[in-house]
Amino acid sequence: MYSFPKNFMIGYSASGFQFEGGLPGGENPNSDWWVWVHDPENIASGLVSGDFPEDGPGYWHLYKTDHDIAERLGINTVRLGIEWSRIFPEPTLGVRATVDRDEEGNIVSVDIDQGDLEKLDRLANRSAMEHYIAIFNDWIDRGGKLILNLYHWPMPLWLHNPIAVRRRGPDRAPAGWIDDKAVVEFTKYTAYIAWRLGDLPDMWSTMNEPNAVYLLGYIYIKSGFPPGYLSVEHSLKAAKNLVQAHARGYDAIKRFSRKPVGIIYVYSWPEILNDRYRDRLNEYRETIYHAFIDSIKFGRSSIVGERDDLKDRLDWLGVNYYTRAILEFSRDVPRQVPGYGHVCGENKYSLAGRPCSDFGWEIYPEGLYMVIKDLWRRYGIKMILTENGVSDRHDRYRPSFIVSHLYMLYRAMKENIDIQGYLHWSLTDNYEWAQGFKQRFGLVEVDYGSKKRRLRPSALIYREIASSNGIPEELEHLIQIHSPPNRLEAE
Amino acid sequence: MYSFPKNFMIGYSASGFQFEGGLPGGENPNSDWWVWVHDPENIASGLVSGDFPEDGPGYWHLYKTDHDIAERLGINTVRLGIEWSRIFPEPTLGVRATVDRDEEGNIVSVDIDQGDLEKLDRLANRSAMEHYIAIFNDWIDRGGKLILNLYHWPMPLWLHNPIAVRRRGPDRAPAGWIDDKAVVEFTKYTAYIAWRLGDLPDMWSTMNEPNAVYLLGYIYIKSGFPPGYLSVEHSLKAAKNLVQAHARGYDAIKRFSRKPVGIIYVYSWPEILNDRYRDRLNEYRETIYHAFIDSIKFGRSSIVGERDDLKDRLDWLGVNYYTRAILEFSRDVPRQVPGYGHVCGENKYSLAGRPCSDFGWEIYPEGLYMVIKDLWRRYGIKMILTENGVSDRHDRYRPSFIVSHLYMLYRAMKENIDIQGYLHWSLTDNYEWAQGFKQRFGLVEVDYGSKKRRLRPSALIYREIASSNGIPEELEHLIQIHSPPNRLEAE
Amino acid sequence: MYSFPKNFMIGYSASGFQFEGGLPGGENPNSDWWVWVHDPENIASGLVSGDFPEDGPGYWHLYKTDHDIAERLGINTVRLGIEWSRIFPEPTLGVRATVDRDEEGNIVSVDIDQGDLEKLDRLANRSAMEHYIAIFNDWIDRGGKLILNLYHWPMPLWLHNPIAVRRRGPDRAPAGWIDDKAVVEFTKYTAYIAWRLGDLPDMWSTMNEPNAVYLLGYIYIKSGFPPGYLSVEHSLKAAKNLVQAHARGYDAIKRFSRKPVGIIYVYSWPEILNDRYRDRLNEYRETIYHAFIDSIKFGRSSIVGERDDLKDRLDWLGVNYYTRAILEFSRDVPRQVPGYGHVCGENKYSLAGRPCSDFGWEIYPEGLYMVIKDLWRRYGIKMILTENGVSDRHDRYRPSFIVSHLYMLYRAMKENIDIQGYLHWSLTDNYEWAQGFKQRFGLVEVDYGSKKRRLRPSALIYREIASSNGIPEELEHLIQIHSPPNRLEAE
Amino acid sequence: MYSFPKNFMIGYSASGFQFEGGLPGGENPNSDWWVWVHDPENIASGLVSGDFPEDGPGYWHLYKTDHDIAERLGINTVRLGIEWSRIFPEPTLGVRATVDRDEEGNIVSVDIDQGDLEKLDRLANRSAMEHYIAIFNDWIDRGGKLILNLYHWPMPLWLHNPIAVRRRGPDRAPAGWIDDKAVVEFTKYTAYIAWRLGDLPDMWSTMNEPNAVYLLGYIYIKSGFPPGYLSVEHSLKAAKNLVQAHARGYDAIKRFSRKPVGIIYVYSWPEILNDRYRDRLNEYRETIYHAFIDSIKFGRSSIVGERDDLKDRLDWLGVNYYTRAILEFSRDVPRQVPGYGHVCGENKYSLAGRPCSDFGWEIYPEGLYMVIKDLWRRYGIKMILTENGVSDRHDRYRPSFIVSHLYMLYRAMKENIDIQGYLHWSLTDNYEWAQGFKQRFGLVEVDYGSKKRRLRPSALIYREIASSNGIPEELEHLIQIHSPPNRLEAE
Repeated sequence: MYSFPKNFMIGYSASGFQFEGGLPGGENPNSDWWVWVHDPENIASGLVSGDFPEDGPGYWHLYKTDHDIAERLGINTVRLGIEWSRIFPEPTLGVRATVDRDEEGNIVSVDIDQGDLEKLDRLANRSAMEHYIAIFNDWIDRGGKLILNLYHWPMPLWLHNPIAVRRRGPDRAPAGWIDDKAVVEFTKYTAYIAWRLGDLPDMWSTMNEPNAVYLLGYIYIKSGFPPGYLSVEHSLKAAKNLVQAHARGYDAIKRFSRKPVGIIYVYSWPEILNDRYRDRLNEYRETIYHAFIDSIKFGRSSIVGERDDLKDRLDWLGVNYYTRAILEFSRDVPRQVPGYGHVCGENKYSLAGRPCSDFGWEIYPEGLYMVIKDLWRRYGIKMILTENGVSDRHDRYRPSFIVSHLYMLYRAMKENIDIQGYLHWSLTDNYEWAQGFKQRFGLVEVDYGSKKRRLRPSALIYREIASSNGIPEELEHLIQIHSPPNRLEAE
Repeated sequence: MYSFPKNFMIGYSASGFQFEGGLPGGENPNSDWWVWVHDPENIASGLVSGDFPEDGPGYWHLYKTDHDIAERLGINTVRLGIEWSRIFPEPTLGVRATVDRDEEGNIVSVDIDQGDLEKLDRLANRSAMEHYIAIFNDWIDRGGKLILNLYHWPMPLWLHNPIAVRRRGPDRAPAGWIDDKAVVEFTKYTAYIAWRLGDLPDMWSTMNEPNAVYLLGYIYIKSGFPPGYLSVEHSLKAAKNLVQAHARGYDAIKRFSRKPVGIIYVYSWPEILNDRYRDRLNEYRETIYHAFIDSIKFGRSSIVGERDDLKDRLDWLGVNYYTRAILEFSRDVPRQVPGYGHVCGENKYSLAGRPCSDFGWEIYPEGLYMVIKDLWRRYGIKMILTENGVSDRHDRYRPSFIVSHLYMLYRAMKENIDIQGYLHWSLTDNYEWAQGFKQRFGLVEVDYGSKKRRLRPSALIYREIASSNGIPEELEHLIQIHSPPNRLEAE
Repeated sequence: MYSFPKNFMIGYSASGFQFEGGLPGGENPNSDWWVWVHDPENIASGLVSGDFPEDGPGYWHLYKTDHDIAERLGINTVRLGIEWSRIFPEPTLGVRATVDRDEEGNIVSVDIDQGDLEKLDRLANRSAMEHYIAIFNDWIDRGGKLILNLYHWPMPLWLHNPIAVRRRGPDRAPAGWIDDKAVVEFTKYTAYIAWRLGDLPDMWSTMNEPNAVYLLGYIYIKSGFPPGYLSVEHSLKAAKNLVQAHARGYDAIKRFSRKPVGIIYVYSWPEILNDRYRDRLNEYRETIYHAFIDSIKFGRSSIVGERDDLKDRLDWLGVNYYTRAILEFSRDVPRQVPGYGHVCGENKYSLAGRPCSDFGWEIYPEGLYMVIKDLWRRYGIKMILTENGVSDRHDRYRPSFIVSHLYMLYRAMKENIDIQGYLHWSLTDNYEWAQGFKQRFGLVEVDYGSKKRRLRPSALIYREIASSNGIPEELEHLIQIHSPPNRLEAE
Repeated sequence: MYSFPKNFMIGYSASGFQFEGGLPGGENPNSDWWVWVHDPENIASGLVSGDFPEDGPGYWHLYKTDHDIAERLGINTVRLGIEWSRIFPEPTLGVRATVDRDEEGNIVSVDIDQGDLEKLDRLANRSAMEHYIAIFNDWIDRGGKLILNLYHWPMPLWLHNPIAVRRRGPDRAPAGWIDDKAVVEFTKYTAYIAWRLGDLPDMWSTMNEPNAVYLLGYIYIKSGFPPGYLSVEHSLKAAKNLVQAHARGYDAIKRFSRKPVGIIYVYSWPEILNDRYRDRLNEYRETIYHAFIDSIKFGRSSIVGERDDLKDRLDWLGVNYYTRAILEFSRDVPRQVPGYGHVCGENKYSLAGRPCSDFGWEIYPEGLYMVIKDLWRRYGIKMILTENGVSDRHDRYRPSFIVSHLYMLYRAMKENIDIQGYLHWSLTDNYEWAQGFKQRFGLVEVDYGSKKRRLRPSALIYREIASSNGIPEELEHLIQIHSPPNRLEAE
């Protein structure tokens, strides 16, 4: 038995956009992502799947069903999200807020006073707010912990219209995170939510995976993320504004809540195959890989330079982990080596002999241990594994995936690294952004036609783990790490 | 929810030889099979694996551990076996018994009187007997039902010495079932056990899969079963003696126990691909496929001719089912078509696009329904699915295997066919005869080094089924039948 | 023996950009594609491979080697290309030409007089021109036929700068085919080449796969083609200018050469799985699939409306064929169904059970027959299969790929359809655009380090075909069409 | 270019039983193998396939067709066989011969005088003999070399009746090689053939793979070889008689022919995975692996003890090589480790990551080099690679199989090892013993219905090699040895 600490959080993570839709009244057409996935040009180009979130699992209506399942599985913690654009479908631009800038124009503080909050309240979709509160209370009333994340990618359309950006250019359309207006509006939104909810959540996260936003939206445009044009410059601009948004959001939440405020970031453990890239790898880590969190922890990074107003805005760090990234450098540009990490064949084996998911992601639990160790060394801050999961419709790999990654956490905790929980991505199948419904990440299968929930075997495995707060001896055999190449294949 | 009837038996089946060994004192070197799997010529030839039963799961010592697991999984019934050669390591030939023969020499009755029983008791290994009773009571005391099977392939060496048969010929060595001495000695053994146990078991089975004995031992000799020589004549002789042994054993048990007495037979649903074989198929069923059970139900078959003394010796029928058999006929000889049923590549897909197990057996749940329907029509007798399982080390198919086969039973029961239970083969990994430890049939993995038990995900699936006495709606998606070719492959 | 007609052309196709580079002096940095594949942002984003054409097979220097191989293989025809940007690295904009436009501004004629030609000659890289002529003559001197294609995707950078377009917008940078300047400049280029070469080539093609240019560049932007932004409007604009460029180029060539002038187009046979899309499919064919060639054959299409100046500009049609396209329609938008055609897993099987190439393209020879029949019915014009091949590094499928597709041509010719030749793509491995060197289409493997050529087994198969001008009986077994699902897999 | 020595023999090997049948008149029902594969019990048991040699490639009638193909492929040497039972369908027991035995009863000489030969001639099927001569001359007349092998497994039924042996025991039926009558009769047969043919063949082989006969017939009985019963004692007896038969046959041929006389043996390179088996491996080589050839070279071995009359009966050694054998030892008994060598899944990958054939044999060219080196060190005798090939219906591996194994020969020859030729198994598909027609070893596919021959791509590869007497540089890339695990799989 590999036991976890007392009060270890075991649960699942979810978001708004990917889960809420599915039944009439659950849709929310006010965001960039909504417009993006419905855009005929995007569908024609294959950038998005042609699946739509309004055909999703329907959590907006069926949250009690899902909380019932979670409870039965022994889950004690959930991470949920609020959709910014659902709360503020109309612009909040008119609500004045006191914005301080330094001489370089950076936003060093955003003050939202009581009057502003009341104006925001009038602009807000209050019935949506009440519905969210009902969802949260349904979970809290079961005795569960709630981690509340405020931003998981969709922005209000009035702040970011990626189709208009494509047609007219980013200077002639709402341009999202490359415009620092977004920093101010995000702060209003966070302040408003914190004002409404106070200490209701046990923990706050300002945003989930800002790196997905600034990298997939502006660099890895084959991923089908808005706005989907290639610009390293804009990627960096977005990164900087996301940093500022986090810091200002952090400050705002702190005014209304005593609960810890963190951020969630996704890490793919970077490795090289060829030692001549060693220096490049080190440089990559310092200047790119760690830059975002450095900004809000140390107030110093390649993204923001030196900024005291950003420093120490981090009570806890959410770590999302899926796989590794083997890097090589073509004329100084880092690129992922095909055959490893995210760049494998769907349901094939990586060049290292590891099985790969339905998404073509290599299963590599060791990377989680490396990520955690590295972050602990750098930041010494308490962490939660806020996402970890596998697209695996037939549940071939998920049981051992879960146990193997939990074992890596266990090993890290044995070394006194402060990890407070593990949240699986996710309880149910959901809408996987540009990929639509094809990728299935649920412990629980969703029949999208009937909205029925079906347990995958791994749901029962998860229950065993949750109910015993550890990896029971009876499941230890599911730990599969560093299996020699071909072993699984040949057997 | 597909509910099973009240009092439906859900459990597992096990045998002596495959499970008992593993820890010092658990071995039993007195049987043909023991000698067979240790024989250096057999090992050298590849007929047997070179694995040994004394390295097995160790149930002889660890039965409480396994019963604990079974209880936790919600299992209400187990089928266990007694090893004939463990009870009678020395010959019982000297114990007189009154044997009646008809004019053709058939054994029509075997009478064992009180004196005989006492003599048998003096010959018996009574401490082994006590140990079996302790095992049975451990299970019964937990409130579970017990089905007791008296013969599952190993014979006492003094009755069958396959190595000596090979060297000296069947006429100059103890020749097992081709000699009708075996009928008499088997009756003594059954009488003795019934005399000792009376109504302790809830149900009796005289023997498990006699067809494996007479077909694999004398026809399909690549299977590595003793005595391993090819002779259709001896196969038929063995079949006839097994029929007589069952009938005389049935009579003997009835004297001492009020509990129902049945037999367990394995059925591979026979099909053809080419309609020109239709007549042959029908003939095959009448003369071969059904002949054994016809003998003991109707007293009439190609094996025994017409025999009243064999008739109606069947209170219930145990059905073992694993896969189907696609037949073709080469010069009137039936042979299984490669690429289907038992004759597939390990872990490949059958020519019908169905996944195949680690053993190369096609997964074909529909065949179970066909078998059951056909048997019900023919015999109208209550049945128990006494074995069903899959060699699947990584548990890729077992969850859907179990649910799909149970669904087939459900369908049959919906048509008012009297099926009283489902016993999975098996709770734990065990010694798969000539194949040794390579084939893993357990809901629970056994680490043969440490003897530790580990749950496979399917164990948890089984618990859900057992605890709800049916297929919960949440698991219905695991029913996978008639998946179109390539679907699973391509996904 | 399936014999081809007398004088049937059997050969290979090649292009400039993909083949010429590899040895010092062979590079040509003056095109949009050169800049595109070297752009660090493109590399970082994964839009392009990070491989470079200057590391290619080196045909610019090694053409004799390759012609030797071709000759030994019995090849009688090659299709080669000229790189526009190599001949005119500097703008030809200053060379006046008489451009006539109709009232809608369409370019209805472009007249280049002798003075213009001489100016062009002064602007041209004449040593490159001489080198091309040497290459062509080397082949012609061996007795081979030459089909000369004038445009295979790269444009001079001064006409199209996709990086500048991305940074500054298409209205503030050389915008390629969306600007009708390209029509005029292309006409100057074609006139110049025709003036120089006259009747040297046996046949002319103005351009290869304009549909790749206007679809992959502006719609299917995940393909990594320049300019790589999504705009249906610009796609249509580019299509129209390509039509005009062809027509004006056709007129220009005709002034200087008596040889037939055609165009080469790539066809993926469109099919549907669901009959409710039947109307949509028909509509798709009329308005999209056939629109380009309709424009230059009938002077009437959804691209150009009604235009007499475009009509009958087609002496022959080059057909490129690789696979099919299964279509479905999401909110009226056609999209390719994953699991078929171009959208399969690399080296997996399609959902129809067909093997797929290293590129993930389904092998579907029947589609070629359908394409040819359909084109013959529509245009009744002589055709050449100008490209057909498979990315198959280990040559697992290429032998049967070649024979099966040739058999489809044979079947079509049996029905008196006028097909004059088959040109394989390609003789050697080459630079596969955004994919780089990973995809290997050669009958002959290239070791890119040493530039050595190695025969794949299919090269020898091709020699048998070429030398017997048909499919010899001994190779008929390689015809593999409509293999039942799973057959290959299971065997 | 890896050049072979001048006069290097490149060709193919064939046998009688596997090739001759197929057309009326070609069958020969006088052998043990004929009876064996037609026996209904054998078919029912799955020991044999149910395919029959009379449906084979039909070489008896179609030898000119096959020689035509061979000639076109540039083949300069063939190894053909004579069927003993075709020449002597009736017993030759009555022909007296002078047999000398030593005090232990060993046959130390067999003298057949002119009178005996004339009696044999009267018993012989002379028209069959003439037909063989016509076949041989057809090849010789084309300028090819002929290696004639006299025994390739089938024995006359009057000497070996495996079905009778099974029914009545080896002491009451013609028992084949365990009876030293076989030595005498074999000598008569060889003497007769040599007397008839004299110097017609360029080289003689007395027998092919006697180890298959004594090991598969008496030890590895799952192979389905007659007589198919397990007895190490009889295996050794057969081995000894085969040794004596070779030696006496050698002596007999030498009387009538000046051409070199050798034997053909099959070698699977033995390896271990675990170093603790090192001593066992060495012992295995000395006592088992090399014992047969030691007997006829050194007159000393574990099979024959010390025998001068057997010594130096070897002018050349034929080496057959297919794969390796990874050994482990269970209680001193050597067994092949599953997952390597002959014991792999059909068309899967070995546990070392090597591809495996349709037969489940690992492709391992390095083993050939090891075998050759080891034999050269031990015997220092000239060798011919007399069989090497792969069951590969779709020709996925054969091209690289051939080239890789030839490269291994090349490497050995570079070290001055005297290898005089390479004979592929085989030119055409043929009857693979107990496996029937499923395993396809031909460079040329046979359509068994029409008897048509079709070239596999590897036939053309072979032609390139034969015509250039080496591995042309253009084919070097097909050398695939020690490919890192997973490489092929992943690509």
